[in-house]
Amino acid sequence: MPDSINKLASKFSKLPGVGSKSALRYAYAVLDMSEDEVDAFCEALKEVKEKVKFCSQCGDYSETDICPICASRPKKTICVVAQPRDIAAMEKAKIYKGVYHVLRGTISPLDGRGPNEIRIKELLGRLDGVEEVIVATNPDVEGEATAMYIARLIRPLGIKVTRLAQGISMGSDIEYADEVTLGKAIEARTEI
Amino acid sequence: MPDSINKLASKFSKLPGVGSKSALRYAYAVLDMSEDEVDAFCEALKEVKEKVKFCSQCGDYSETDICPICASRPKKTICVVAQPRDIAAMEKAKIYKGVYHVLRGTISPLDGRGPNEIRIKELLGRLDGVEEVIVATNPDVEGEATAMYIARLIRPLGIKVTRLAQGISMGSDIEYADEVTLGKAIEARTEI
Repeated sequence: MPDSINKLASKFSKLPGVGSKSALRYAYAVLDMSEDEVDAFCEALKEVKEKVKFCSQCGDYSETDICPICASRPKKTICVVAQPRDIAAMEKAKIYKGVYHVLRGTISPLDGRGPNEIRIKELLGRLDGVEEVIVATNPDVEGEATAMYIARLIRPLGIKVTRLAQGISMGSDIEYADEVTLGKAIEARTEI
Repeated sequence: MPDSINKLASKFSKLPGVGSKSALRYAYAVLDMSEDEVDAFCEALKEVKEKVKFCSQCGDYSETDICPICASRPKKTICVVAQPRDIAAMEKAKIYKGVYHVLRGTISPLDGRGPNEIRIKELLGRLDGVEEVIVATNPDVEGEATAMYIARLIRPLGIKVTRLAQGISMGSDIEYADEVTLGKAIEARTEI
Protein backbone atom coordinates (compact mmCIF):
# COMPACT_ATOMS: atom_id res chain seq x y z
CA MET A 1 0.00 0.00 0.00
CA PRO A 2 1.43 3.44 -0.91
CA ASP A 3 2.67 5.31 2.17
CA SER A 4 0.63 8.40 1.40
CA ILE A 5 -2.57 6.35 1.48
CA ASN A 6 -1.64 4.86 4.85
CA LYS A 7 -0.71 8.32 6.08
CA LEU A 8 -4.07 9.76 5.07
CA ALA A 9 -5.89 6.76 6.54
CA SER A 10 -4.09 7.34 9.85
CA LYS A 11 -5.40 10.92 9.85
CA PHE A 12 -8.96 9.75 9.23
CA SER A 13 -8.62 7.14 11.99
CA LYS A 14 -8.12 10.03 14.45
CA LEU A 15 -11.78 10.95 13.93
CA PRO A 16 -14.22 9.63 16.55
CA GLY A 17 -15.48 6.09 15.90
CA VAL A 18 -13.40 5.64 12.74
CA GLY A 19 -11.57 2.31 12.72
CA SER A 20 -8.65 1.39 10.47
CA LYS A 21 -10.99 -0.19 7.91
CA SER A 22 -13.24 2.87 7.54
CA ALA A 23 -10.19 5.13 7.57
CA LEU A 24 -8.72 3.23 4.62
CA ARG A 25 -12.09 3.35 2.87
CA TYR A 26 -12.18 7.12 3.30
CA ALA A 27 -8.62 7.43 1.98
CA TYR A 28 -9.61 5.50 -1.15
CA ALA A 29 -12.65 7.74 -1.52
CA VAL A 30 -10.33 10.77 -1.49
CA LEU A 31 -8.34 9.18 -4.31
CA ASP A 32 -11.57 9.01 -6.31
CA MET A 33 -12.23 12.73 -5.69
CA SER A 34 -11.17 15.39 -8.17
CA GLU A 35 -8.27 17.73 -7.35
CA ASP A 36 -10.80 20.51 -6.87
CA GLU A 37 -12.89 18.48 -4.45
CA VAL A 38 -9.79 17.69 -2.38
CA ASP A 39 -8.75 21.34 -2.39
CA ALA A 40 -12.25 22.33 -1.27
CA PHE A 41 -12.05 19.70 1.48
CA CYS A 42 -8.74 21.17 2.64
CA GLU A 43 -10.09 24.70 2.57
CA ALA A 44 -13.09 23.64 4.65
CA LEU A 45 -10.74 22.04 7.19
CA LYS A 46 -8.60 25.16 7.51
CA GLU A 47 -11.54 27.57 7.37
CA VAL A 48 -13.26 25.90 10.29
CA LYS A 49 -10.15 26.36 12.43
CA GLU A 50 -9.67 29.96 11.32
CA LYS A 51 -13.26 31.19 11.53
CA VAL A 52 -14.78 29.26 14.41
CA LYS A 53 -14.16 30.74 17.85
CA PHE A 54 -16.18 30.46 21.05
CA CYS A 55 -19.24 32.56 21.89
CA SER A 56 -18.16 34.86 24.73
CA GLN A 57 -21.44 34.17 26.54
CA CYS A 58 -22.45 30.52 26.18
CA GLY A 59 -19.11 29.10 25.10
CA ASP A 60 -20.58 27.39 22.04
CA TYR A 61 -18.64 27.40 18.79
CA SER A 62 -19.37 30.61 16.93
CA GLU A 63 -17.98 32.66 14.06
CA THR A 64 -19.11 35.83 15.85
CA ASP A 65 -18.17 37.09 19.33
CA ILE A 66 -21.73 36.38 20.46
CA CYS A 67 -23.46 33.39 18.85
CA PRO A 68 -26.82 33.80 17.07
CA ILE A 69 -28.65 32.00 19.88
CA CYS A 70 -27.27 34.22 22.68
CA ALA A 71 -27.86 37.26 20.48
CA SER A 72 -31.50 36.53 19.79
CA ARG A 73 -33.11 34.53 22.58
CA PRO A 74 -34.52 35.40 26.03
CA LYS A 75 -32.12 34.60 28.86
CA LYS A 76 -34.64 33.55 31.53
CA THR A 77 -33.66 29.88 31.09
CA ILE A 78 -30.17 28.48 30.55
CA CYS A 79 -29.69 24.93 29.30
CA VAL A 80 -26.34 23.59 30.52
CA VAL A 81 -24.63 21.09 28.20
CA ALA A 82 -21.25 19.40 28.28
CA GLN A 83 -20.28 19.92 24.64
CA PRO A 84 -21.24 22.17 21.71
CA ARG A 85 -22.46 19.11 19.81
CA ASP A 86 -25.11 18.63 22.51
CA ILE A 87 -26.57 22.00 21.48
CA ALA A 88 -26.90 20.78 17.90
CA ALA A 89 -28.87 17.78 19.19
CA MET A 90 -31.09 19.92 21.46
CA GLU A 91 -31.82 22.35 18.63
CA LYS A 92 -32.91 19.50 16.36
CA ALA A 93 -35.66 18.76 18.91
CA LYS A 94 -36.99 22.29 18.20
CA ILE A 95 -38.60 22.47 21.68
CA TYR A 96 -36.21 24.57 23.74
CA LYS A 97 -36.27 28.31 23.05
CA GLY A 98 -33.86 29.60 25.70
CA VAL A 99 -30.08 30.04 25.72
CA TYR A 100 -27.35 27.50 26.43
CA HIS A 101 -24.18 27.22 28.47
CA VAL A 102 -21.40 24.91 27.37
CA LEU A 103 -19.32 23.44 30.21
CA ARG A 104 -16.81 22.00 27.76
CA GLY A 105 -16.46 18.84 29.77
CA THR A 106 -17.87 17.14 32.85
CA ILE A 107 -16.55 16.68 36.36
CA SER A 108 -14.47 13.51 36.21
CA PRO A 109 -12.02 12.98 39.09
CA LEU A 110 -10.62 9.90 37.33
CA ASP A 111 -9.49 12.09 34.41
CA GLY A 112 -8.39 14.80 36.83
CA ARG A 113 -11.21 17.13 35.76
CA GLY A 114 -12.63 18.99 38.75
CA PRO A 115 -15.23 21.81 38.79
CA ASN A 116 -12.51 24.35 37.97
CA GLU A 117 -11.52 22.55 34.78
CA ILE A 118 -14.97 23.10 33.26
CA ARG A 119 -16.92 26.33 32.67
CA ILE A 120 -18.91 26.44 35.93
CA LYS A 121 -17.54 29.81 37.08
CA GLU A 122 -18.71 31.30 33.77
CA LEU A 123 -22.15 29.78 34.38
CA LEU A 124 -22.42 31.39 37.82
CA GLY A 125 -21.58 34.71 36.19
CA ARG A 126 -24.62 34.48 33.91
CA LEU A 127 -27.34 33.87 36.49
CA ASP A 128 -28.88 37.30 37.20
CA GLY A 129 -32.42 37.37 35.82
CA VAL A 130 -32.31 33.62 35.19
CA GLU A 131 -35.37 31.73 36.45
CA GLU A 132 -34.45 28.17 35.49
CA VAL A 133 -31.29 26.21 34.76
CA ILE A 134 -31.89 23.00 32.82
CA VAL A 135 -28.95 20.63 33.25
CA ALA A 136 -28.69 18.51 30.09
CA THR A 137 -25.57 16.47 30.83
CA ASN A 138 -25.40 12.83 29.75
CA PRO A 139 -27.08 10.29 32.04
CA ASP A 140 -23.78 8.68 32.96
CA VAL A 141 -21.63 8.84 36.10
CA GLU A 142 -19.75 12.05 35.14
CA GLY A 143 -22.90 13.67 33.77
CA GLU A 144 -24.90 12.90 36.91
CA ALA A 145 -22.10 14.08 39.19
CA THR A 146 -21.81 17.32 37.25
CA ALA A 147 -25.58 17.88 37.35
CA MET A 148 -25.67 17.29 41.12
CA TYR A 149 -22.72 19.66 41.68
CA ILE A 150 -24.36 22.43 39.65
CA ALA A 151 -27.72 21.91 41.38
CA ARG A 152 -26.09 22.17 44.79
CA LEU A 153 -24.44 25.46 43.76
CA ILE A 154 -27.41 27.12 42.08
CA ARG A 155 -30.49 25.96 44.00
CA PRO A 156 -29.52 28.04 47.09
CA LEU A 157 -29.69 31.15 44.87
CA GLY A 158 -33.43 30.58 44.50
CA ILE A 159 -33.11 29.50 40.89
CA LYS A 160 -35.05 26.45 39.72
CA VAL A 161 -32.67 23.69 38.62
CA THR A 162 -34.12 20.93 36.43
CA ARG A 163 -32.72 18.10 34.35
CA LEU A 164 -33.88 16.17 31.32
CA ALA A 165 -36.39 13.42 32.02
CA GLN A 166 -35.02 9.89 31.90
CA GLY A 167 -37.00 6.98 30.50
CA ILE A 168 -37.35 4.69 27.53
CA SER A 169 -36.57 6.38 24.23
CA MET A 170 -39.07 6.70 21.39
CA GLY A 171 -39.21 3.71 19.08
CA SER A 172 -37.14 1.59 21.45
CA ASP A 173 -38.09 -1.90 22.61
CA ILE A 174 -39.07 -2.31 26.25
CA GLU A 175 -37.90 -5.89 25.76
CA TYR A 176 -34.34 -4.67 25.19
CA ALA A 177 -34.34 -1.64 27.50
CA ASP A 178 -31.66 -1.89 30.21
CA GLU A 179 -32.95 -2.34 33.76
CA VAL A 180 -31.71 1.04 35.01
CA THR A 181 -33.51 2.95 32.26
CA LEU A 182 -36.63 0.86 32.74
CA GLY A 183 -36.46 1.40 36.51
CA LYS A 184 -36.26 5.17 36.05
CA ALA A 185 -39.08 5.03 33.51
CA ILE A 186 -41.31 3.21 36.00
CA GLU A 187 -40.48 5.63 38.83
CA ALA A 188 -41.19 8.61 36.59
CA ARG A 189 -44.32 7.12 35.01
CA THR A 190 -46.92 9.67 33.91
CA GLU A 191 -50.73 9.42 33.94
CA ILE A 192 -52.52 9.01 30.61
CA MET B 1 -24.53 26.29 13.75
CA PRO B 2 -21.61 28.23 12.19
CA ASP B 3 -21.60 27.94 8.38
CA SER B 4 -18.00 26.75 8.27
CA ILE B 5 -18.88 23.79 10.49
CA ASN B 6 -21.80 22.85 8.24
CA LYS B 7 -19.55 23.29 5.23
CA LEU B 8 -16.91 20.95 6.63
CA ALA B 9 -19.57 18.45 7.67
CA SER B 10 -20.91 18.45 4.11
CA LYS B 11 -17.41 17.54 2.88
CA PHE B 12 -17.16 14.67 5.35
CA SER B 13 -20.62 13.45 4.35
CA LYS B 14 -19.24 12.86 0.82
CA LEU B 15 -17.16 9.99 2.24
CA PRO B 16 -18.64 6.49 1.83
CA GLY B 17 -21.08 5.49 4.55
CA VAL B 18 -20.83 8.80 6.40
CA GLY B 19 -24.26 10.19 7.31
CA SER B 20 -25.01 13.76 8.34
CA LYS B 21 -24.69 12.86 12.04
CA SER B 22 -21.23 11.30 11.73
CA ALA B 23 -20.15 14.09 9.39
CA LEU B 24 -21.05 16.68 12.02
CA ARG B 25 -19.28 14.61 14.67
CA TYR B 26 -16.14 14.59 12.53
CA ALA B 27 -16.38 18.34 11.98
CA TYR B 28 -16.53 18.88 15.75
CA ALA B 29 -13.54 16.57 16.15
CA VAL B 30 -11.60 18.76 13.72
CA LEU B 31 -12.43 21.77 15.90
CA ASP B 32 -10.84 19.94 18.81
CA MET B 33 -7.67 19.33 16.78
CA SER B 34 -4.66 21.64 16.98
CA GLU B 35 -3.82 23.92 14.03
CA ASP B 36 -0.85 21.66 13.31
CA GLU B 37 -2.97 18.52 13.27
CA VAL B 38 -5.39 20.14 10.82
CA ASP B 39 -2.51 21.31 8.61
CA ALA B 40 -1.09 17.78 8.66
CA PHE B 41 -4.52 16.42 7.74
CA CYS B 42 -4.68 18.84 4.79
CA GLU B 43 -1.18 17.92 3.66
CA ALA B 44 -2.06 14.23 3.77
CA LEU B 45 -5.14 14.93 1.65
CA LYS B 46 -3.18 16.84 -0.99
CA GLU B 47 -0.17 14.51 -0.88
CA VAL B 48 -2.30 11.48 -1.64
CA LYS B 49 -3.66 13.18 -4.77
CA GLU B 50 -0.22 14.37 -5.86
CA LYS B 51 1.80 11.22 -5.20
CA VAL B 52 -0.58 8.37 -5.89
CA LYS B 53 -0.84 7.34 -9.53
CA PHE B 54 -1.76 3.98 -11.06
CA CYS B 55 0.62 1.04 -11.52
CA SER B 56 1.19 0.74 -15.27
CA GLN B 57 0.85 -3.04 -15.03
CA CYS B 58 -1.90 -3.99 -12.56
CA GLY B 59 -3.69 -0.64 -12.36
CA ASP B 60 -3.53 -0.56 -8.56
CA TYR B 61 -2.79 2.74 -6.83
CA SER B 62 0.96 3.24 -6.67
CA GLU B 63 3.46 6.00 -6.00
CA THR B 64 5.83 4.36 -8.50
CA ASP B 65 5.26 3.56 -12.19
CA ILE B 66 5.27 -0.14 -11.29
CA CYS B 67 3.80 -1.03 -7.89
CA PRO B 68 5.87 -3.05 -5.36
CA ILE B 69 3.71 -6.15 -5.92
CA CYS B 70 4.13 -6.18 -9.71
CA ALA B 71 7.83 -5.40 -9.29
CA SER B 72 8.55 -8.27 -6.92
CA ARG B 73 6.15 -11.17 -7.45
CA PRO B 74 5.97 -14.04 -9.96
CA LYS B 75 3.44 -13.41 -12.75
CA LYS B 76 2.21 -16.98 -13.28
CA THR B 77 -1.08 -16.18 -11.52
CA ILE B 78 -3.11 -12.99 -11.83
CA CYS B 79 -5.87 -12.19 -9.33
CA VAL B 80 -8.49 -9.98 -10.96
CA VAL B 81 -10.25 -7.53 -8.63
CA ALA B 82 -12.74 -4.75 -9.23
CA GLN B 83 -11.13 -2.06 -7.06
CA PRO B 84 -7.74 -1.30 -5.50
CA ARG B 85 -9.28 -1.64 -2.04
CA ASP B 86 -9.98 -5.29 -2.83
CA ILE B 87 -6.23 -5.82 -3.10
CA ALA B 88 -5.76 -4.41 0.39
CA ALA B 89 -8.29 -6.96 1.67
CA MET B 90 -6.68 -9.86 -0.23
CA GLU B 91 -3.24 -8.94 1.06
CA LYS B 92 -4.49 -8.95 4.65
CA ALA B 93 -5.32 -12.65 4.16
CA LYS B 94 -1.57 -13.22 3.53
CA ILE B 95 -2.32 -16.30 1.38
CA TYR B 96 -2.02 -15.11 -2.21
CA LYS B 97 1.51 -14.57 -3.48
CA GLY B 98 0.88 -13.69 -7.14
CA VAL B 99 0.13 -10.40 -8.90
CA TYR B 100 -3.18 -8.56 -9.30
CA HIS B 101 -5.16 -6.86 -12.03
CA VAL B 102 -7.56 -4.05 -11.15
CA LEU B 103 -10.56 -3.77 -13.47
CA ARG B 104 -11.59 -0.46 -11.88
CA GLY B 105 -15.23 -1.38 -12.05
CA THR B 106 -17.51 -4.24 -13.01
CA ILE B 107 -19.69 -4.86 -16.04
CA SER B 108 -23.00 -3.19 -15.22
CA PRO B 109 -25.33 -2.55 -18.15
CA LEU B 110 -27.71 -0.70 -15.85
CA ASP B 111 -25.01 1.89 -15.11
CA GLY B 112 -23.94 1.84 -18.75
CA ARG B 113 -20.64 0.08 -17.95
CA GLY B 114 -19.79 -2.51 -20.60
CA PRO B 115 -16.58 -4.58 -20.97
CA ASN B 116 -14.86 -1.65 -22.68
CA GLU B 117 -15.46 0.66 -19.71
CA ILE B 118 -13.35 -1.52 -17.41
CA ARG B 119 -9.73 -2.69 -17.78
CA ILE B 120 -10.34 -6.01 -19.54
CA LYS B 121 -8.28 -5.20 -22.64
CA GLU B 122 -5.33 -4.46 -20.33
CA LEU B 123 -5.87 -7.84 -18.67
CA LEU B 124 -5.75 -9.68 -22.01
CA GLY B 125 -2.47 -7.91 -22.72
CA ARG B 126 -0.87 -9.44 -19.62
CA LEU B 127 -1.62 -13.12 -20.22
CA ASP B 128 1.53 -14.54 -21.81
CA GLY B 129 3.19 -16.94 -19.37
CA VAL B 130 0.14 -16.81 -17.08
CA GLU B 131 -1.10 -20.19 -15.88
CA GLU B 132 -4.08 -19.16 -13.75
CA VAL B 133 -6.42 -16.20 -13.52
CA ILE B 134 -8.27 -15.98 -10.20
CA VAL B 135 -11.36 -13.80 -10.56
CA ALA B 136 -12.04 -12.16 -7.18
CA THR B 137 -15.02 -9.96 -8.01
CA ASN B 138 -17.81 -9.50 -5.46
CA PRO B 139 -20.42 -12.29 -5.30
CA ASP B 140 -23.17 -9.97 -6.56
CA VAL B 141 -24.89 -9.65 -9.93
CA GLU B 142 -22.29 -7.35 -11.52
CA GLY B 143 -19.41 -9.30 -9.98
CA GLU B 144 -20.71 -12.63 -11.22
CA ALA B 145 -21.44 -11.27 -14.70
CA THR B 146 -17.94 -9.82 -14.90
CA ALA B 147 -16.37 -13.10 -13.74
CA MET B 148 -18.36 -15.08 -16.33
CA TYR B 149 -17.40 -12.65 -19.11
CA ILE B 150 -13.70 -12.87 -18.23
CA ALA B 151 -13.84 -16.67 -17.97
CA ARG B 152 -15.44 -16.92 -21.41
CA LEU B 153 -12.66 -14.77 -22.86
CA ILE B 154 -9.69 -16.40 -21.19
CA ARG B 155 -10.53 -20.10 -20.86
CA PRO B 156 -10.24 -20.64 -24.65
CA LEU B 157 -6.60 -19.47 -24.40
CA GLY B 158 -5.84 -22.60 -22.34
CA ILE B 159 -5.45 -20.59 -19.14
CA LYS B 160 -7.07 -21.88 -15.95
CA VAL B 161 -9.72 -19.47 -14.69
CA THR B 162 -10.83 -19.83 -11.08
CA ARG B 163 -12.89 -17.77 -8.64
CA LEU B 164 -13.02 -17.41 -4.87
CA ALA B 165 -14.96 -20.13 -3.03
CA GLN B 166 -18.36 -19.10 -1.74
CA GLY B 167 -19.71 -20.32 1.59
CA ILE B 168 -20.41 -19.29 5.16
CA SER B 169 -17.87 -16.83 6.54
CA MET B 170 -15.70 -17.55 9.59
CA GLY B 171 -17.33 -16.69 12.89
CA SER B 172 -20.73 -16.25 11.28
CA ASP B 173 -23.94 -17.85 12.51
CA ILE B 174 -25.46 -20.55 10.31
CA GLU B 175 -28.70 -19.52 12.02
CA TYR B 176 -28.47 -16.09 10.41
CA ALA B 177 -26.78 -17.05 7.12
CA ASP B 178 -28.88 -16.13 4.06
CA GLU B 179 -30.29 -19.05 2.11
CA VAL B 180 -28.25 -18.38 -1.04
CA THR B 181 -24.95 -18.43 0.86
CA LEU B 182 -26.02 -21.51 2.78
CA GLY B 183 -27.11 -23.21 -0.43
CA LYS B 184 -23.73 -22.58 -2.03
CA ALA B 185 -21.98 -23.75 1.15
CA ILE B 186 -23.91 -27.05 1.05
CA GLU B 187 -23.19 -27.59 -2.66
CA ALA B 188 -19.49 -26.89 -2.13
CA ARG B 189 -19.22 -28.90 1.12
CA THR B 190 -15.79 -30.43 1.75
CA GLU B 191 -14.88 -33.74 3.42
CA ILE B 192 -13.37 -33.65 6.91
